[in-house]
Amino acid sequence: MSELLQAMDLLRKVFDRYAGKDGDGKSLSKGELGDLLCNELCEGKAVKEKDVERFFADLNNDKDTVIDFHEYITFVAALTALRNEHP
Amino acid sequence: MSELLQAMDLLRKVFDRYAGKDGDGKSLSKGELGDLLCNELCEGKAVKEKDVERFFADLNNDKDTVIDFHEYITFVAALTALRNEHP
Repeated sequence: MSELLQAMDLLRKVFDRYAGKDGDGKSLSKGELGDLLCNELCEGKAVKEKDVERFFADLNNDKDTVIDFHEYITFVAALTALRNEHP
Repeated sequence: MSELLQAMDLLRKVFDRYAGKDGDGKSLSKGELGDLLCNELCEGKAVKEKDVERFFADLNNDKDTVIDFHEYITFVAALTALRNEHP
């Protein structure tokens, strides 16, 4: 499998791991987003509740109660572009 | 390193590999995009010139002569979301 397809599958795998913790397994609740941020981006350091709230509000484009896969991928794309500009 | 960070680095690595073939190494020419599509998404099968042209036009949001990293990542995000809907 090509590296691009591997990267895409890895993004999917990470989403499923956190989305599956509670609820429908197809979207991220606030708590699941907090866990993802903590473990995947902050090396296990706790993320402040207000920061999770802010992230959740920023990512939640359709203003429902969860972060769906498309909102997650849009967030990852923005983060990847940001990391590119500030390595 | 977390799997999310690994996936982001992998996306960066793939871009650099093709962007570095000619020109400035910071963006994808039409030829480099064709190579990326062929090797990363079509298992090495040649991609028709007209399809590369169409992809290039669709991805090239700022209508310059290259695909920059941001345009590439937006494409990858859309493709990843599409693969999610049609596994």
